[in-house]
Amino acid sequence: MTSHVRAPIANLEAGERDLADAPSHYLARVLRLGAGSRFVAFDPAGATEADAEIVSVEGGRTRVRLSAPRPATVMATREIAWIHALSKGDKLDDIVRDATELGATRVVVAEATRSVVHLDAARAAARRARWNKIALEAARQSGRGDPPKISGPMPWSEALVAVPADAARFCLHPGDGPPLAPYLLLALEGGGPIAFAAGPEGGLTEDEVARAEAAGYVRVSLGPFVLRTETVAAAVLGACRILASAATD
Amino acid sequence: MTSHVRAPIANLEAGERDLADAPSHYLARVLRLGAGSRFVAFDPAGATEADAEIVSVEGGRTRVRLSAPRPATVMATREIAWIHALSKGDKLDDIVRDATELGATRVVVAEATRSVVHLDAARAAARRARWNKIALEAARQSGRGDPPKISGPMPWSEALVAVPADAARFCLHPGDGPPLAPYLLLALEGGGPIAFAAGPEGGLTEDEVARAEAAGYVRVSLGPFVLRTETVAAAVLGACRILASAATD
Repeated sequence: MTSHVRAPIANLEAGERDLADAPSHYLARVLRLGAGSRFVAFDPAGATEADAEIVSVEGGRTRVRLSAPRPATVMATREIAWIHALSKGDKLDDIVRDATELGATRVVVAEATRSVVHLDAARAAARRARWNKIALEAARQSGRGDPPKISGPMPWSEALVAVPADAARFCLHPGDGPPLAPYLLLALEGGGPIAFAAGPEGGLTEDEVARAEAAGYVRVSLGPFVLRTETVAAAVLGACRILASAATD
Repeated sequence: MTSHVRAPIANLEAGERDLADAPSHYLARVLRLGAGSRFVAFDPAGATEADAEIVSVEGGRTRVRLSAPRPATVMATREIAWIHALSKGDKLDDIVRDATELGATRVVVAEATRSVVHLDAARAAARRARWNKIALEAARQSGRGDPPKISGPMPWSEALVAVPADAARFCLHPGDGPPLAPYLLLALEGGGPIAFAAGPEGGLTEDEVARAEAAGYVRVSLGPFVLRTETVAAAVLGACRILASAATD
């Protein structure tokens, strides 16, 4: 039986090795696994995984034996890019976590006019590192072999084109746009990549929506209720995930 | 022009009145509105609303003039019941907030075998009061006139039948069930009420799933990735909200 425990390990290769501190701590301290315990090692960068067995845990060092790596068994099968404007507090943390669970393959963080937060280069790099860590952890918890690629923060107009060239594109803007659903069903049936762009708490400016439209995004609405910016991601990506199984079955 | 400011006020009736402390604080202190400012008063219990104007703010007392009440303009148009097993920490808070934004008309909190939390009667009542407050606030923020009715915590088998008798019913259980999407599209096209039941972090027991099936729930899966229990609500209700507009247009 394959274990349900999963731990990220870089550069998988058959054989024995000592684990780095983070996976060692997770397996030996958090989960209290010992010699003989089995788990699945996965390499997020290579989208590969391998059966693994703990050989020994000694003085904070965990030694494991890896079998030959194979392609990750559960991977996102559809390219979905999620562009989100930088938002207050830790909202982007939640959005990255939800997007990972719900199958986004790319998260692009954008700077919008009404983004309350502005990050200098050093803080931007620190945030990106944190988002990557969150995505890795969410991928591990959801049993997903390939966390989304995360980029940004970058200017809105750059973010709009940081998606696959052939993606169907939607700009989520509350108000008078047509409903997303019919377009989304068509795009999912088409099977190609899809890109979504969402604004910060205060919404996008008309100029930002116009730039999105110029870049091929269809301005769509999600209905009459106003959603918090972090709910938009879960709702839309949840719909994609649920519908994708209908469109391809 | 109708104001975008909304405040909950019970028992709407045309005429002048002094506001209770909570809406008075919200309008006069939080939003710093004064005499002459207009807002929309809404009564969540009656699903009515009325244009309102502040007459005076004096010594912490806010006096308003209400026009004749009318049915709330933005209401959930479809009956959607969400049953969720009691979960750790403040996860139910997030679920109630998301469910309100995304249009659920009823939230039923259930006690499941693997619910880590168990509440005595006094704590259950306090929690229910908090969930109602969160629903009211989320309804206000999303411009929704009718917050969901919240009930429970109650035993799993009671929760399963605390939904409309003619509802299409789905039990969300990770694993080998058929995908939700085709059933959901049919149910949304049918236009009748829909009920969903979701387990706690540790999942439902086989016995609980069997009880749900005996009560007419179809056991469905959301795909290969494991979702956190709080993400399930946002994803499924998000899909309902987005698809409802396709099914009825």
